[in-house]
Amino acid sequence: MREDLRVNLSIRIFTDRKCFGPGIAALLHRVDELHSLRAAAQSMEMAYSKAWKIVKNGEEGLGIRLLSSTTGGKNGGGAVLTEEARALLENYDAYCQELRALAEQKFAERFPVRMEAASKD
Amino acid sequence: MREDLRVNLSIRIFTDRKCFGPGIAALLHRVDELHSLRAAAQSMEMAYSKAWKIVKNGEEGLGIRLLSSTTGGKNGGGAVLTEEARALLENYDAYCQELRALAEQKFAERFPVRMEAASKD
Repeated sequence: MREDLRVNLSIRIFTDRKCFGPGIAALLHRVDELHSLRAAAQSMEMAYSKAWKIVKNGEEGLGIRLLSSTTGGKNGGGAVLTEEARALLENYDAYCQELRALAEQKFAERFPVRMEAASKD
Repeated sequence: MREDLRVNLSIRIFTDRKCFGPGIAALLHRVDELHSLRAAAQSMEMAYSKAWKIVKNGEEGLGIRLLSSTTGGKNGGGAVLTEEARALLENYDAYCQELRALAEQKFAERFPVRMEAASKD
């Protein structure tokens, strides 16, 4: 058995559908930096229509607004995270961080040789 | 916010590549039941060539043999799990079960209203 085994988690939130996960979290972080869904999508090399669908699906699945439009300013309007979106994103990020730490700890307990070796990198 | 949020984890093991996760675990369980990779693939409506690639990729990524061929018998040969594959599969299943229980517990702590509602179903 190779000794460099490591674990990878994909953490997604569902209601009646998949509605929040790594993809939408990354997109919302970009919107938060760039104050625009279009700029966020571009920065991830994603079509605007796809970004819009991801946000729309997230909003419908979660039952909250994630983005609110801004008007005016030097960029002629854009988007910012709603307070609910910001709270959810922070909660999701903290949850992922906590769970990944637990996952690595438990993985090291169950696959002890591999994790010792993996920690060399 | 909807109240039926729940969390879903995909748990994968990597070395230099993705080499073990829910797909190969399900396939190996079928091989263990059916004593044949071809029958296992058919039972999952998967092409035999795809099943074979999944096993080959897993073996190369993990650095162990997962299946050993059997000859003779009423089905004219088949496949069984190696001891190492069986140990890994049991370890992976136990790890996933442990981690999912932790994930739900931590999710309920961070998203308390939703989990109370979700527990009604």
